Amino acid sequence: MVQPLPKPTKLLLSKPCTFLFLLIIICILGFYTLHYPHASYPPSNRQTALRFRRDFLSSATNSTVAAYLRALTLHPHVAGTKPSLDTIHYVQSHFSDLGLQTHTAHYHALLSYPLRSSLSAHFSNGSHVDIPLSEPGLSRDDGVIKPYHAYSPSGSAHAEVVFVNYGREEDYRALEAAGANVSGCVVIARRGGELPRSEAVRNAERHGAEAVLLYTEGDVRFNEGFERGFVMSGVGDPLSPGWGGVDGAERLDLEDPEVLKRFPNIPSMPLSAGAAGAILATLGGASAPGEWRAGVERVGPGPTLVNFSYEGEKKMMTIQNVFAVINGLEEPDRYVLLGNHRDAWTYGAVDPNSGTAALLDIARRYALLINSGWKPRRTIILCSWDAEEFGMVGSTEWVEQNLVNLGSKAVAYLNVDCAALGPGFFVRATPQLDNLILEVTKKVKDPDLEGSTVYENWLATNRIVDIQRLSGVDSDFAPFVQHAGVPSIDMYYGRDFPVYHTAFDSYDWMRKFGDPLFHRHVAVAGVWGLIALHLADDSILPFDYFSYVDQLKHYKDVLNHLLDGSISLEPLMTAIEEFAYAAREAENEAQTLKEEESTGEFVMMKKRALNDRLMLAERGFLDTDGLEGRQWFKHLVYGPPTDHRSELFFFPGVADALNQANSTKTGQGQTNLQHEIWRVARAIQRAAQALRGDLH
Amino acid sequence: MVQPLPKPTKLLLSKPCTFLFLLIIICILGFYTLHYPHASYPPSNRQTALRFRRDFLSSATNSTVAAYLRALTLHPHVAGTKPSLDTIHYVQSHFSDLGLQTHTAHYHALLSYPLRSSLSAHFSNGSHVDIPLSEPGLSRDDGVIKPYHAYSPSGSAHAEVVFVNYGREEDYRALEAAGANVSGCVVIARRGGELPRSEAVRNAERHGAEAVLLYTEGDVRFNEGFERGFVMSGVGDPLSPGWGGVDGAERLDLEDPEVLKRFPNIPSMPLSAGAAGAILATLGGASAPGEWRAGVERVGPGPTLVNFSYEGEKKMMTIQNVFAVINGLEEPDRYVLLGNHRDAWTYGAVDPNSGTAALLDIARRYALLINSGWKPRRTIILCSWDAEEFGMVGSTEWVEQNLVNLGSKAVAYLNVDCAALGPGFFVRATPQLDNLILEVTKKVKDPDLEGSTVYENWLATNRIVDIQRLSGVDSDFAPFVQHAGVPSIDMYYGRDFPVYHTAFDSYDWMRKFGDPLFHRHVAVAGVWGLIALHLADDSILPFDYFSYVDQLKHYKDVLNHLLDGSISLEPLMTAIEEFAYAAREAENEAQTLKEEESTGEFVMMKKRALNDRLMLAERGFLDTDGLEGRQWFKHLVYGPPTDHRSELFFFPGVADALNQANSTKTGQGQTNLQHEIWRVARAIQRAAQALRGDLH
Repeated sequence: MVQPLPKPTKLLLSKPCTFLFLLIIICILGFYTLHYPHASYPPSNRQTALRFRRDFLSSATNSTVAAYLRALTLHPHVAGTKPSLDTIHYVQSHFSDLGLQTHTAHYHALLSYPLRSSLSAHFSNGSHVDIPLSEPGLSRDDGVIKPYHAYSPSGSAHAEVVFVNYGREEDYRALEAAGANVSGCVVIARRGGELPRSEAVRNAERHGAEAVLLYTEGDVRFNEGFERGFVMSGVGDPLSPGWGGVDGAERLDLEDPEVLKRFPNIPSMPLSAGAAGAILATLGGASAPGEWRAGVERVGPGPTLVNFSYEGEKKMMTIQNVFAVINGLEEPDRYVLLGNHRDAWTYGAVDPNSGTAALLDIARRYALLINSGWKPRRTIILCSWDAEEFGMVGSTEWVEQNLVNLGSKAVAYLNVDCAALGPGFFVRATPQLDNLILEVTKKVKDPDLEGSTVYENWLATNRIVDIQRLSGVDSDFAPFVQHAGVPSIDMYYGRDFPVYHTAFDSYDWMRKFGDPLFHRHVAVAGVWGLIALHLADDSILPFDYFSYVDQLKHYKDVLNHLLDGSISLEPLMTAIEEFAYAAREAENEAQTLKEEESTGEFVMMKKRALNDRLMLAERGFLDTDGLEGRQWFKHLVYGPPTDHRSELFFFPGVADALNQANSTKTGQGQTNLQHEIWRVARAIQRAAQALRGDLH
Repeated sequence: MVQPLPKPTKLLLSKPCTFLFLLIIICILGFYTLHYPHASYPPSNRQTALRFRRDFLSSATNSTVAAYLRALTLHPHVAGTKPSLDTIHYVQSHFSDLGLQTHTAHYHALLSYPLRSSLSAHFSNGSHVDIPLSEPGLSRDDGVIKPYHAYSPSGSAHAEVVFVNYGREEDYRALEAAGANVSGCVVIARRGGELPRSEAVRNAERHGAEAVLLYTEGDVRFNEGFERGFVMSGVGDPLSPGWGGVDGAERLDLEDPEVLKRFPNIPSMPLSAGAAGAILATLGGASAPGEWRAGVERVGPGPTLVNFSYEGEKKMMTIQNVFAVINGLEEPDRYVLLGNHRDAWTYGAVDPNSGTAALLDIARRYALLINSGWKPRRTIILCSWDAEEFGMVGSTEWVEQNLVNLGSKAVAYLNVDCAALGPGFFVRATPQLDNLILEVTKKVKDPDLEGSTVYENWLATNRIVDIQRLSGVDSDFAPFVQHAGVPSIDMYYGRDFPVYHTAFDSYDWMRKFGDPLFHRHVAVAGVWGLIALHLADDSILPFDYFSYVDQLKHYKDVLNHLLDGSISLEPLMTAIEEFAYAAREAENEAQTLKEEESTGEFVMMKKRALNDRLMLAERGFLDTDGLEGRQWFKHLVYGPPTDHRSELFFFPGVADALNQANSTKTGQGQTNLQHEIWRVARAIQRAAQALRGDLH
């Protein structure tokens, strides 16, 4: 508006006029500068933001991602080992070479490694066979860690074999019905049935087994692979539960009951599907229950015996998280976090370095934006976690250490573990992020269907766009959602892959099977990085709490159906209504503030206040007392139920109380269940209050 | 700078020039208005703030305060009773008549009232006397509630009397040593020795007593007064522990173990010092231990017997908190809270309505400021609590209900219970507020020493300005500090008064003894209201964390002395150093931002960010797991130790662990103690992190 003026002024103004005019301008500008420092804010500019988002999308390349993955997967890099250090340096150099502010956070944590192991099968005909305990074709120089279960105790057993299907409680009941007793035996179980490794081992322990062998069914081409993994309960370093295991921090004693209760008491190892099949085929004893459909005729015990021996060590190791920080211009103290773990059981081409490669490419593309003038409104932090494979150790220690600041300042956490393992976009999120996910997937090209967006192909494949929730504890979002109450997303291309945690999870496998052209990596990086751009740059946070309301209503209906009217859900209904009201109010306020974009008083502070409420609403779902008996889990809507058989994949406290009420059938059980429903109702009310923001 | 210009322009400008000039001005202003909405912020103006503070001080009057007190104390007004409703309306009308935004928050809570009680003493000579159970000179119409202990169970006893001094564990040990057995007796104890009423009763219960009579020594002129009070453990409504007891909220059953554990199991009543003296003078049995110095020769048991009978009822009653809200202009979502309870055991002239009168006068004076153009930067809330006398019920329910918003938005809570009960200024605070208290007391006239400030007389009287801490649970600051971690102050004039909780706590007593000229009320209102003005208006919050650092160092030294090197305090030292570093950084940043008052970019957001850190640092001392066995108490620096004998009036978890370690003398005791020290160290680290504000 000022620009068109100079020409006519030249015509009209005499010299003193010109002088005076300039003087006035200078005075006015001076006055503004002195009295209204905020006048020097760069104007919020939607056009500019749009341009940076377009630039981000157009800077995608699959070649860079492939190169990063190649470099990351040259050697196996289990957390705490020497080659793992190389990947730390690689990530760190990448960030700093791009000119990004980089730092590391290191922790000392109790990890666990194998020393010696052996397994032989002894058949009824007197023959025996030594079962190789590693993938074929590996030499010692490859450095692939022997198949083992981290945190398994050392131990040996020479005993009859029983097949226990998935090793669930119902499987043991079926065995008992079939007359098979597992006491004193070595059990073989297949992985699955939603049962974590640790639970499969603990169930076997409870039923008197001496040792456990777990195998994973799948693609026969890879059935000589061993699925490594941990068998510890809970998340994070067992010696620093609830606080960061930094230099000089308190460590519980290894013999502390709090520590001991996290480990199983009988040893276990992974077994290849091939070897498992060979042993299971020789079992006699009871017939396999029909519903197992496991391809096993008889379940034992015996006559085949195994000689099982495992020796491992638990050791304090240094682990390192690596961060790149892009400081926000207007709100440097609000954080949008993108995270992926870096440590792998073997080469980690899928798990997790497909995600790492995507993260590094986002860093590259953000650096380009920075060079072309971009500064995010809020701070963006790229996080490369260590020791996830041992139980989300790196991320958990960091979240515990930074809890007080994450609690008041973290806008969202965006997790990608395995970026690409096959076709099909999958995403899990806290519900207020659903809409943003949909919007962003409409902007990103689909990797598998020419001319389509991720959204379109996703919709076409599933008929609905199905966003899952974050009740599991299977990647680094767990501490963010379930301990700190930070709105979170977890996403990946492809769902299952046959080389999971085996030595076959290599760059070659990725090139042949997982994502030959790296287009899926690119799509994930696109969605991931663009979601972060919105969260970091949008003047009003793109959080939609109606979606949370719908989800909670659905949970209430599911619960109602399960309870069949035996318990009042009135408190839940009232709380959800309050939450719906708060969501509506927040939405209206957001609309008003968007329209006020460039007028009105204190708009910046008003936006900040609304954004804070949008950010903090999720914290309302936390309860300081946490889940009964598992205090670390503070989120009352999303978290793992104690019993995997629960039909509730939400309200974990209610799920536990329901199981207990069903099994005890006492009045006390019903009272506890009602109390847990009240607790969830109050959590929803807290979220509503945080969203509304006013005191009662 | 613009002002001097108009004159010359008139001389120099031709008409087209004038037009153009105006056009330019309009364009420039338009440009600024459209692009820099913040330019319309009223400039922070120290002069204006100073003027409003002066206006606040000069608007003090003792006559208004006296009138408010007179009106509030016309009738006794125990929480939940009809006359209590009148005081609610009085406060509410006062606020709304002043034009202040007013609202109430009501709760249903379990209160307790007396139905019938009787007491007679039966002497060895066969005579007996019925002991009157009310203050003399009261008629039924006065409506003064009978002396009782709220939440005492009903019950009766006909048994020998034993005198147990204060009723502490050491007193029972002394009795045992003297050969006096209290089992089956009615014990008489004097109030004192830092022992809460509930603990005196529980100790008696543990030693087998049948009933308890508590009397209060003091001014002989009032020795026919009865000290009413509650004997419940913990704070807040026992049926809604940890959440607000609003309409339709969950209520625990009266028989729930969580509820039952809060009440003693033997009945108790207050006794006047006069009656107690008469009974105690007739005791035989063992000689009173010399160190008791209680004026009692022999402690019994007997030969005097008492016939004790108390019948009371616990009832769900409606209680109401009343609020006046003065919305902040720039940061409406940051709260400075001033609170006082309104309910009284009798007339409440001292306790609590001297504080209420001061609060109402602050409201009057703030309304004057508003009429002269003042709008605070942050929101100020005046809070009038109900049912404090039953265990901080009104404030606790409100804090529990609003925890999520208070946690993120409450700047400070300023409590005054009894404003004036005698000479001498006393104050307790969380340490970051020390400096502000000192500065403000330098501005307020001393009520007792002509020409002196509160500060000068305070200094002269005590030789040091002694600010106490908030570890007690004796007024409404307890939920704010110990559950929500809000920086707080509690203050009063005078320390002890002889009519505490008796029917003599009347307006007449105040006029004759407590504060005849109401100058102490005025001084408290001055300090209270001025502190709030600073907290609400200062652009940088006047929090000084060096004072907290000094205090923590002192605690560490005390602890070191007590432990005599048997336990490492290294973690504590490291944490305090971190906290000191954070305090220094915050101080530097505050200095820089103050100098930047009117220049630089994003100053407003930077100040908000720093202020948030200053506000949230106190929350760092909270631990979600709370104190062992008393989870509601979340603050690890300030809170009540379980055992009143503790020498530590800070670090309540450490105090408990120390007592336990001393009594058990096991290795486990030492381990627990070290663990509690670690917990405090981590709490201090969290506070340091919140103050620094950056992620690690």
